[in-house]
Amino acid sequence: MKKLQKKICDEGIVLSDSVLKVDSFINHQMDPKLMFEIGQEFVQRFEGKSITKVLTIESSGIAPAIMAALQLEVPLIFARKKKSLTLKDNVYTSKVYSFTKQEENEITVSKEFLEPNDKVLVIDDFLANGQAALGLIEIIKQANAEVSGIGIVIEKSFQNGGDKLRNLGYQVESLAQVSSLKNGEVQFLSQKLEEVTA
Amino acid sequence: MKKLQKKICDEGIVLSDSVLKVDSFINHQMDPKLMFEIGQEFVQRFEGKSITKVLTIESSGIAPAIMAALQLEVPLIFARKKKSLTLKDNVYTSKVYSFTKQEENEITVSKEFLEPNDKVLVIDDFLANGQAALGLIEIIKQANAEVSGIGIVIEKSFQNGGDKLRNLGYQVESLAQVSSLKNGEVQFLSQKLEEVTA
Repeated sequence: MKKLQKKICDEGIVLSDSVLKVDSFINHQMDPKLMFEIGQEFVQRFEGKSITKVLTIESSGIAPAIMAALQLEVPLIFARKKKSLTLKDNVYTSKVYSFTKQEENEITVSKEFLEPNDKVLVIDDFLANGQAALGLIEIIKQANAEVSGIGIVIEKSFQNGGDKLRNLGYQVESLAQVSSLKNGEVQFLSQKLEEVTA
Repeated sequence: MKKLQKKICDEGIVLSDSVLKVDSFINHQMDPKLMFEIGQEFVQRFEGKSITKVLTIESSGIAPAIMAALQLEVPLIFARKKKSLTLKDNVYTSKVYSFTKQEENEITVSKEFLEPNDKVLVIDDFLANGQAALGLIEIIKQANAEVSGIGIVIEKSFQNGGDKLRNLGYQVESLAQVSSLKNGEVQFLSQKLEEVTA
């Protein structure tokens, strides 16, 4: 998605070889129009999948996920990182380790919102080691529902999450694939491909 | 907002005299179309306010806030409850006590996203004791920006947050005002008014 790549180039801040900060349009301040277009792009990429639910994790996944859900005309569920006081025991859970935050969260989804006939699109803001996506897939499996695919805003292709998920047979659609953050510069996978085919 | 009131009547679960669970369409599963209409309603209620930013707190505020921001064509900022590893010291902070979760969170907003000439609409899912809204207002004041108003999806009018904010002179627009949860029943303020004027 060209517009997203441009935004990453213009506003993304490379904090290290593995950390890209996109606080000005995704992770802290959000650009609602871009989020709407991201939702639109996901809908196109998963066309024909008869999706019945969108599933994400709080907090940064919610905006792109609700924009996809709005255009798919299906409900969005966001997995919680902490058990809510109003969320009783009737939940699916899985463990997700965040390398960025250096902590393990137990994520929970209430059993009443996922059913065996659901076809679920997983959406998240970042894909790095794949822990969050695998946690969400684990929950979808616990519900005996189907994973329709995984939609990611920014994939760090130099980490192994994307490979893991694709090797498991899932359709993974990443709107921007960052192949390197070395020397403070953002490189995209498509740039490399263009260079190869040039 | 009639549609929201109907949804609360149909799907809201009264857990106690003070706790209303709306996990099926706001706090865990979300109804994207309803969220879009909630955003639309906020835009109408704050018409002419020349809003430049929408501000909310993660997580449940993000969906209604981004739908308002989308239609206002302005950025959304969500305050964080935990300091991010990529969020350095250049932040505004305030303390917010959550009675529901029985914990105090320090909320933070990066200084780079709020400026003195900003007119900021505060959006949140619930208004009870007003702690979250007051925390967000405190941050807007630290930035020397202007509070354009406070948009709330569900106000528990039997708690004192709404009065506090209105007494401070803010325009508070709550799309559903719950006046009582006694005896397991949801009563709305407008119902009372209708009864009074009937």
